[in-house]
Formats: sequence, structure tokens, C-alpha cells
Amino acid sequence: MSAGEATVPGAAVPGGSGAGPRAIDTVFVANRGEIALRVVRTCREMGIRSVVGYSTADSDSAAVRAADDIVRIGPAAGKRSYNYPPAIIEAALRSGAQAVHPGYGFLSEDPDFAEICAANGLVFVGPDPGVMAKLGDKALARALMAAAGVPVLPGSDGPVQGERSVADEAGRIGLPLIIKAAAGGGGRGMTVVRHRDDLLPAYRQARAAAREFFGDDRVYLERYWERPRHVEVQVLADSHGGAVALGERDCSVQRRHQKLIEESPGPGLPADVARRLAEYALSGVRSVGYTGAGTFEFLVSGDDVAFIEVNCRIQVEHPVTEMVTGMDLVREQLRVAAGAPLSVEAAAGRIAPRGVAVECRVNAEDPDRGFIPCAGRLTEFTPPGGPFVRVDTHAYAGWSIPPDYDSLLAKVIVWGPDREQALDRMDRALAEFAIGGPGVHTTIPLLRSVLRDPLFRAAGHSTAFLDERRSYA
Amino acid sequence: MSAGEATVPGAAVPGGSGAGPRAIDTVFVANRGEIALRVVRTCREMGIRSVVGYSTADSDSAAVRAADDIVRIGPAAGKRSYNYPPAIIEAALRSGAQAVHPGYGFLSEDPDFAEICAANGLVFVGPDPGVMAKLGDKALARALMAAAGVPVLPGSDGPVQGERSVADEAGRIGLPLIIKAAAGGGGRGMTVVRHRDDLLPAYRQARAAAREFFGDDRVYLERYWERPRHVEVQVLADSHGGAVALGERDCSVQRRHQKLIEESPGPGLPADVARRLAEYALSGVRSVGYTGAGTFEFLVSGDDVAFIEVNCRIQVEHPVTEMVTGMDLVREQLRVAAGAPLSVEAAAGRIAPRGVAVECRVNAEDPDRGFIPCAGRLTEFTPPGGPFVRVDTHAYAGWSIPPDYDSLLAKVIVWGPDREQALDRMDRALAEFAIGGPGVHTTIPLLRSVLRDPLFRAAGHSTAFLDERRSYA
Repeated sequence: MSAGEATVPGAAVPGGSGAGPRAIDTVFVANRGEIALRVVRTCREMGIRSVVGYSTADSDSAAVRAADDIVRIGPAAGKRSYNYPPAIIEAALRSGAQAVHPGYGFLSEDPDFAEICAANGLVFVGPDPGVMAKLGDKALARALMAAAGVPVLPGSDGPVQGERSVADEAGRIGLPLIIKAAAGGGGRGMTVVRHRDDLLPAYRQARAAAREFFGDDRVYLERYWERPRHVEVQVLADSHGGAVALGERDCSVQRRHQKLIEESPGPGLPADVARRLAEYALSGVRSVGYTGAGTFEFLVSGDDVAFIEVNCRIQVEHPVTEMVTGMDLVREQLRVAAGAPLSVEAAAGRIAPRGVAVECRVNAEDPDRGFIPCAGRLTEFTPPGGPFVRVDTHAYAGWSIPPDYDSLLAKVIVWGPDREQALDRMDRALAEFAIGGPGVHTTIPLLRSVLRDPLFRAAGHSTAFLDERRSYA
Repeated sequence: MSAGEATVPGAAVPGGSGAGPRAIDTVFVANRGEIALRVVRTCREMGIRSVVGYSTADSDSAAVRAADDIVRIGPAAGKRSYNYPPAIIEAALRSGAQAVHPGYGFLSEDPDFAEICAANGLVFVGPDPGVMAKLGDKALARALMAAAGVPVLPGSDGPVQGERSVADEAGRIGLPLIIKAAAGGGGRGMTVVRHRDDLLPAYRQARAAAREFFGDDRVYLERYWERPRHVEVQVLADSHGGAVALGERDCSVQRRHQKLIEESPGPGLPADVARRLAEYALSGVRSVGYTGAGTFEFLVSGDDVAFIEVNCRIQVEHPVTEMVTGMDLVREQLRVAAGAPLSVEAAAGRIAPRGVAVECRVNAEDPDRGFIPCAGRLTEFTPPGGPFVRVDTHAYAGWSIPPDYDSLLAKVIVWGPDREQALDRMDRALAEFAIGGPGVHTTIPLLRSVLRDPLFRAAGHSTAFLDERRSYA
């Protein structure tokens, strides 16, 4: 382990102006799948004990095998395990952990869960619950960012209620527009309105969907750009005033608002736009007092930029940034959680991103059946290797994919000195990935089609690209 | 594939002052194990067809599975397959290949084989046979380097024959000294003499060993440094006058002259020594007209430096250099073989090594039985993954290790922003590597002991380190 790590027992770094040092010798991992293993790995490298809380369905996952210790937190159903704070808090306290890493999804962006952790004397690895609550309210986040000088799309200033108000706001904003759940995220419950006649039916439908998905039927309106790029900025901030933007990731290859391929730097993104995005993200960080790792998401259309939302957590696609910067983002999260400053590597001005990194999400889905998730036993599972190829996966030969969770099976991340070499390398890596089992299908053929698509190769694609290529979906 | 690659059919780069462009659309891989797969991977990324020549014992290796095409070249015995030029040449010609990649070991440093390739119209991926012949004669190489201004150890100027001459030379050089085979390599047939009485018996023994191993009983004498570092410089040179030194690798962790752990940059190596080593290597390259990838090996003791030998091939430990420089060395080899210049990334002055990379060789050996190689079926084989971890291996779950070849099972290479983080990461990766099977043992426990050894951690070790730690061997 490295000397001088605040997170190492007995070696706490003296506190600065912000939160003081907190010795963290055990981290409770309140998640599953590849991200649970990801956290375990960094803990081990830092000399921190990791305890994974797992559901019955995950009892033989690679994260459970790799952890220093494990605690069963409940049955397969997320509502009674990964999404159930009492079970997690009890297990974390019993495990002797000082901190809880929530991963992504599940409770990672739930400010109430962060509060409960704090009330139980546990460090929640993420920003302050008050900051999470503000940014989690998408309409409030939009208003806060606008006030901080970050460009936003024309839209309603906060949630809109009542059909009359919706019609008035829509008239002001103009068409096309998009209706989003104020409490939403992950692309769910969003509806695009292109014709005036569709407005009120879409509003009713969006409210119902928001109520169903998020238990909160407030919605807001935003101008809709037809073929933008999705570009996001990775930030890190500590409690001593240190904050840094680690470059952008382009996540425009999406299928029904779900990201499939991510890369950094943004292909074809003008240097000036990239610089402005980083500045906006840092303005946002400072304006709300953000700490930890986070992502500021933007739409980009030519030179126009508009803030969408902040993700208050580590993201699925964080390895892309790690590959170009050489940083371990989970390590930085744990440093910040322990009250330490960002590492010297992360300190602003010392990061020189190198080359191009690309991530492909390999999902267990059946392309012939509308990409529904597949479960089943993996009789063969040999990930690719060799130069500049990284695989993050919780699967292994002999493991059975449980039917209870999302379909992410592995993330393949590659690096190259330029985009063309990185894409060629990705195609090679995906071709090499041997996955087999009765009824098990993956998105690898779809991903390889995109990698060879001339529009994608020329960086001429937008977020609409994949849904417009009927042959892929 | 990248535009403008000389190695891509129909896209040959116009020739410069050196060898003209040669279209290479198919490469014959005249090797086995992880290095065969390594070459296949880069070929695929460059859009080049790869054909692997395999022996009966390797019919289900990962390289054979990954290749575009395969040709059986003979039985398990190397003398009738991987070491048998007629079988390889016939298979290569039949496969339609324009070039032969020899990997490392086997025929990779045999100038006669390189000549035979050329005589059959095949490009040998390596330096000119004449250069190989000169550098392969260790005594001649030493004389050539001394003439080029590269420091060498005091020693006999060429092979020494006859007991009288040996005694005279030894008196001049001083003790301790080492007797080496002129045609040798790989640490075999070397004898250290510390007392005058041992000189002549050691000479007789060294001659006999040289005759047995290399079919050539010429030996030469060199002053012996007791606890030096082994530091080598990776070079690349094209046929247009382009040449670059890609930094050094420290390979001082050796067991009986076999490297186990390699890293770059050299830990604790003074910057001035590193700079001088690179200069000496480039002087050597220019003095003999070296082309392709190669390694100049040196001993280092404090500020003193002495040339040992040149390896005219890609080396087992080349990924260490790839991790810090971002270069694909096999890609550069293939470019040079096709008559193209080094890539723009490789061009001198544009390489900025970043951080620290470490490689551990995971061998299938039994530590309780004097580290004899193990063969057998791998019932479990799950390599480590996650941030900055690379695994190069030809093994997979279900594969059987053949008893016929060397014991290298996998190379684990990690990167970190500093040495401490890199070593912690390696320890994590090795802990995660799940290898199992009846009778299968590996060097992982030994490697992990070294990673935790205070002398190694403090970079206070030498090439004698492991053999002096009786508990490890």
C-alpha cells in the first residue's frame, strides 16, 4: 500500500480546511456485478478491507469471490436487498465498515440513503446528501446550473403542473420538446413531442410513467435537439477546495437512451467546445459544493452546448477516463470519503490525457427477441486480453447469469494512440471474446456492426444514430 | 484498420532511402504460446491475415483458435516443428504469407533461418541476417560495441582457446570472472569463477556445456560484477534511418539467470545513467545498422554501466515498455518489415513515458519440487482484470498444458502512476488470478513473496537477490 494514504488505518492525512480525516480500514460495498468487483479491487490495492453485501442470486459472483468478507443482505429482489437501506445499514455496521460504497444504480443517488448512512455513523462514498437532493431534482438542478452561468436548454423553470400551464410553457419553449420526470434518470420516462396535438396526451403519459418509475409524478419540459451528441465531463472534487475536470466522454451511441459505446476524447469535438464544457462542469461543482466523483452531462450540437443533468456517482463508463488519464477514480472517491485531498496525480494541471479510449458494454441480450435480457449458465467465458485491453466483468466460465438484474455482462475498454487504432483494437477484442451457454446471446454482433459503420467511423453520428439504423435494432 | 499503413495490401507507403515498401497481407507466425497469440492480435488490428504454424501438442492453444488460418508444421518435438526451418518455410509458402514472424526463442535469433526466409522470398520479421550473425556471436558483439564507444566489461577480446591462454587472460582481467559461451544466450552455460584454482576446471566444464547447448564450444571471459542490476534498453529502428530508444527495463529479479519480474523505468536508476544507456543503445543500433525491434542489455552497478549483449527479437517482457509508452511494438516490427518508417507515435522526441509498468511471469512450476515444470489440464483459469491490468496468455479454462515446452503460462502486466501503486496493483492482480487443475502449481506465491519483500520494495535488490533468498528457491 502507498505511504501517506489517508484511507489507511493509522496513516490519516492531517485535515485541511474542509472535513477532517477519517480512518477507513473497511469499506462495505452496497452493490453487485462488475462495479462491486471494481470497488473490491481498488480497496485491495489500497490495503483496505472490503465487505460485499450480496443477494441470494449473487452468492457465487466474482465480486463475492474476491471480497475479503461477505454478508448476505437479502433475496434476489432488489427491493429487499440492494434497494433496501435497513438491510444494508445493518450488514455494514455488523461488518465493521466505516464507509459504504454505493456503486451506480440502486441506492447510489438516493439522498435519503446517504442521510441514513450518516445517521448511523457510516461515511457514504458520494457527495453531501443535501447536494445530492438538489441535483437529483432535475428541474432544480437545471435552475441551479443556469444561475451558475452554465447554458441550459430553453425549458420550464421547474416542474409544470396542469394542462393549461403545460400548453403555455410549450408555446414559449417551442417544438420539438421533451417531457422529463423531475425525479428521473437513466433515460426512463422521457417523451418527445413534435406536434402540438401530441402535447397533452404525452404529458399525461409522462406523469403516469414518472409516478410508476420514480414514485413522483412531477415533470418538466425542455427544448429538444434532434440529433445532438451526448458529451459528459468527469469531475473530481475534495473537501479542501480541490476540484478537477478529467476531460469528456462522448456517449452518443445509445439504443433507446441506453448507452452502448463510450469514448474519450469526444470524436470531432472542437477543442474550444471541450474547454468550455470542462469550465461549465467546474463552475457547477463550485456553485453547489460538489465533492467526490461526478459527471456533468451535456448535449452538444455544433458549437452549441446545453447542460442536461449531473450524475452524483461513479459511472458505468468511468474506465474510459481512467484509460486516458491514468487515474483510478475509485481510489480518488475513497480518498475524498476519508477526508483526504485528491491525489497528486489528480491535482489540476498535472493531468495530460493521452490517446483515445473506448468502452463497449457487452450485454446478455437476445437481438432476435427485441434485445430482452438472457439468463443462464456460461459454459464458456474467455475475455480478450493483450495490449491496451481492459475487461471489467463479474462473470466467469461456469457462472450462471441470474435473471433478476440488468443485462450488463462485461465492459471491454481499449486504448489506442488515435481513434482509428482504438476502434480497430476494440473490434479485435470483441472478436476474441468467447462467450457461450445455452440460450445466452450478447450484444457483441451489434457492437461490431457499429464499430464498422462508416458514419460512426467518421464521427458523424448523434444520439439518434442507432435508433435510426433499423438494421441494428 | 488505419489508413496509410504500409503493411495493408494496396496501401504501401512510398519507399524512402532504405528498403522499398513490401505489401504484407499475410503473416506466418512461426512460434507458439502467448507470443503467437500476441502477433495474431496485432495482425488482426492492422487488417493483416495471420496464419499460425503449430505442432501437434498445440492444436488447441488460444493462438491456434484466434488465428485466421492454421497449418500443422510437425510433432511436439521442437526439432521437428518450431525449430525445423524446412517445415516452417514450406508451411509459410503454402499459406500465402509474405512475411514470417519468429516470436522469441526457437528460430528467432538464428541468422541461417533468416537467410532461408529471404532465399524463399519471405520477409523475416527481424534485423538483417548479417547483423544477426554479428550480434549473435557474443564475443564479436562485445568487440563491435566497444568500438562504437559503448562501455564493456574487461574481458577477452573474442573467444579464448587453450588452457594457457585462459590463464593468461584471467590474470589480465582479474577475479571474479565469468565464462560464457560465444554462441550462448538465455543464461545457459555460464560459469562464475571466484578462485584461481577453479579456473581451468570451470573452463573445461563451460566448453562442454557450450558444445552441448549450442553446438559450438567457443567461450569467452568477462569480469564479473557480484551484485549488479540487469537493465536493458528497448530500441526500434527502420530502414529509413529512423531509430529510437524507448526507455529501459530493469530485469534484476531472476532465478538462476531466468527473469521473473521486469519493470520500467528502472527503479532507483539515476536519470543520468538512464540517459547514457539510451545513448549507448542508439550508438549500437547505428554502428551495426540494426533494424526492427531489439534489446540492448547492460549491467549497472552504481554509476557504472557495461554492455552484455543484444537480443535481436521481440522480448518476453516487451509489454512493460508498451504500457509506459503507449506503443504497440509488434505493430512497429511489422511496419519496419514492410519497409515503412516507424509510426509517428514512435518517432523520436514524441515519446513521453508515463508512470511505472511491471510484468510478472506466471510459470507452471512446482515450488516444492525444485520448480520443475508442471503439465496437465486447467480446470480453472480466470485471469485478473480491472484497471491497468493486462494479461497475455495462451491458456484458458479446459486447456491442457503440454509437457513439451517452457513453463510460461501467463504474463501479468500492470501499470500505475508510481512504483508503489503499480506493485500494490500487481499483488492484487496475482491474488485474483484463479488457476487450478490436478498437479498444476504456479510461481504466483513466489512472485507475491518478492512483491512484499522489503529489499525489493526499496529497490535495493540486484540480480543476485532471488538466489540469495534461500526461502524463495
